Amino acid sequence: MKYRVTVLSGDGIGPEVMAEGLKILQAVAAKYHHEFEFKSELIGGIAIDQTGSALPAATLKTARKSHAVLLAAVGDPRFDDPKLPVHPEDGLLALRKGLGLFANLRPVKVFDQLVDASTLKPDVIRGTDFIFIRELTGGVYFGKPKKEWVTAGGRKAVDTMVYSEHEIARIVRAGFEVARARKKVLVSVDKANVLKSSRLWRQVAIEVSAEYPDVTLTHALVDACAMQLIRTPSAFDVIVTENLFGDILSDEAAQLAGSMGMLPSASLAGIPVSGHKTFGLYEPIHGSAPSIAGQDIANPVATILSVAMMLRYSLALETEARAVEAAVNSVLERGYRTDDIMAPGNTRVGTRQMGDLVAAEV
Amino acid sequence: MKYRVTVLSGDGIGPEVMAEGLKILQAVAAKYHHEFEFKSELIGGIAIDQTGSALPAATLKTARKSHAVLLAAVGDPRFDDPKLPVHPEDGLLALRKGLGLFANLRPVKVFDQLVDASTLKPDVIRGTDFIFIRELTGGVYFGKPKKEWVTAGGRKAVDTMVYSEHEIARIVRAGFEVARARKKVLVSVDKANVLKSSRLWRQVAIEVSAEYPDVTLTHALVDACAMQLIRTPSAFDVIVTENLFGDILSDEAAQLAGSMGMLPSASLAGIPVSGHKTFGLYEPIHGSAPSIAGQDIANPVATILSVAMMLRYSLALETEARAVEAAVNSVLERGYRTDDIMAPGNTRVGTRQMGDLVAAEV
Ligand SMILES: CC(C)[C@H](C(=O)O)[C@@H](O)C(=O)O
Ligand SMILES: CC(C)[C@H](C(=O)O)[C@@H](O)C(=O)O
Repeated sequence: MKYRVTVLSGDGIGPEVMAEGLKILQAVAAKYHHEFEFKSELIGGIAIDQTGSALPAATLKTARKSHAVLLAAVGDPRFDDPKLPVHPEDGLLALRKGLGLFANLRPVKVFDQLVDASTLKPDVIRGTDFIFIRELTGGVYFGKPKKEWVTAGGRKAVDTMVYSEHEIARIVRAGFEVARARKKVLVSVDKANVLKSSRLWRQVAIEVSAEYPDVTLTHALVDACAMQLIRTPSAFDVIVTENLFGDILSDEAAQLAGSMGMLPSASLAGIPVSGHKTFGLYEPIHGSAPSIAGQDIANPVATILSVAMMLRYSLALETEARAVEAAVNSVLERGYRTDDIMAPGNTRVGTRQMGDLVAAEV
Repeated sequence: MKYRVTVLSGDGIGPEVMAEGLKILQAVAAKYHHEFEFKSELIGGIAIDQTGSALPAATLKTARKSHAVLLAAVGDPRFDDPKLPVHPEDGLLALRKGLGLFANLRPVKVFDQLVDASTLKPDVIRGTDFIFIRELTGGVYFGKPKKEWVTAGGRKAVDTMVYSEHEIARIVRAGFEVARARKKVLVSVDKANVLKSSRLWRQVAIEVSAEYPDVTLTHALVDACAMQLIRTPSAFDVIVTENLFGDILSDEAAQLAGSMGMLPSASLAGIPVSGHKTFGLYEPIHGSAPSIAGQDIANPVATILSVAMMLRYSLALETEARAVEAAVNSVLERGYRTDDIMAPGNTRVGTRQMGDLVAAEV
């Protein structure tokens, strides 16, 4: 079978880490006799430069015709001024919404070899291996009204945190499915002591739990969860939450692992059921890091692990996904490190060499 | 002068830690020749039990006639069911709104003696000493519409994140005033790349900064801030942010310090200008901890430090405030610890004994 992959390299270090991700896919193709067809399109700052739009229509069109989308990074300080009419990030939000990518999966796995890279004590962080399921197309990110206006008493601005039963149920189901394939425990995070949307969230989560009698559901308040992530990170397994809470908590959690350069993500248009294919977009969680762009020092591992997630969720190639993950593990085991995770006694390698090493292991 | 203090002991360990806070005030009264008049009122679970309301009218009335309010803790698992018509926390939210307490100050200071209590590495956490200024009466906590309803497609629920220029300007000014009295750096936290209310926030913050040419203002996105708090906590000094972001980030930050039993807070009805008196409510940031209530093991230090903040902000008694803080420091220096911060080599003390020790030092 021929798999069509839309390639969105974006800004900053994007093209460099993307090249290594594609290198790994080529290695997988050779070893397991698959065929990948790559089609590159524009997004972010580079898209604004070339087309005036952060998400040109052609990008959305190509993405819709593909089996999966691989994205590297979006963001460019030239567009930082909030008063500009269009920003690189707008492209990302429009892509999520346009492709219906409601389920954002962000695994936070601390590699044993990198335990010391964390600012948390090794005993606290060792063994941490959990996954966030963040709702990605609803809540205060997209709710209407979303506007600024002028009143007699001055300016006012409003955003709307709105959720329907349907939106909550499908993301909670995604959480239950992922939990079922892991330790069968699911923590749902909300702010039910203050927000109506959180009360509905909690209510629907409890209702959906009846479909998953084998999974244990518990609830945590978002502020308490922000604490627990630092206190006992290794106690978590699967966490499901709404868009804004997921944005904040998953970034907090990413920092636990020491370097963002290691963490992948998947944004899916369907509920991930083991063995089934779901259309999705895959990207490292780090940004475009303009300050280190073009220097062959960025860590490509997050992109490579995003490729593994693509193989797993959108192409149902579990064996291939595991092979990529094992290859990363073995390269780390042998002591190779990019700048961001370098420690005494390791061998420093650049972006391309890291990609070569992982590709060779595959 | 006679200072009228409203005393709200609330639920769980509330009455125990409050007793120690009042003990310290008595010691201050004796030493510095002040007179305090305490009036106790109901709030939270105990208020629901006795009056049916989480915030009886009498409580609000007494609070309004006093110079300051001291609150211990609110919350009782008997009211956990979200479907109940009234919850203990409703009393707290109504009190904040009813007294116009828009500026919540939450210092996060890691005592040198307790550096090892944190889950972060000692080198990372040592010297951490910053303060959150959280907007407390606006945003998604109180915005309308806030409701759940039924549509043809199922249930829906909405909360509204709304801010006016006036609300933003006054809390940002509070941030600048506090920053001016410290290191003259202020970080304003928002989500300006997604939220309209955050764009207005950032805009107003920039406008207000013209009044404070001696203070350097920078901006951080809430997700990036959640990371930075773990990566380089000692780099922060004063952080100002909106209600929900402040709830999440300040709890995250509290966990950095190891135990919530050490952290006080102030919620003010005015901008804290050094040397001026501002009406306010003072409370430890920890909860009612029902599981350890009545056992004389709760840590009263957070309440005692809240008393110090009351002396400083509502009564303009800076010398007395410092005396209380110095007393806490010296008792820790001598090795006395409650259960939550106990470490090998220390002397374990109960709630009352900790209060006695600090009172004696004052
Ligand atoms: C760039 C920004 C709009 C985005 C978000 O807030 O979702 C980012 O922080 C993320 O988490 O993917
Ligand atoms: C109890 C709850 C309503 C409250 C809040 O969310 O403000 C608490 O978490 C706090 O931070 O004081």
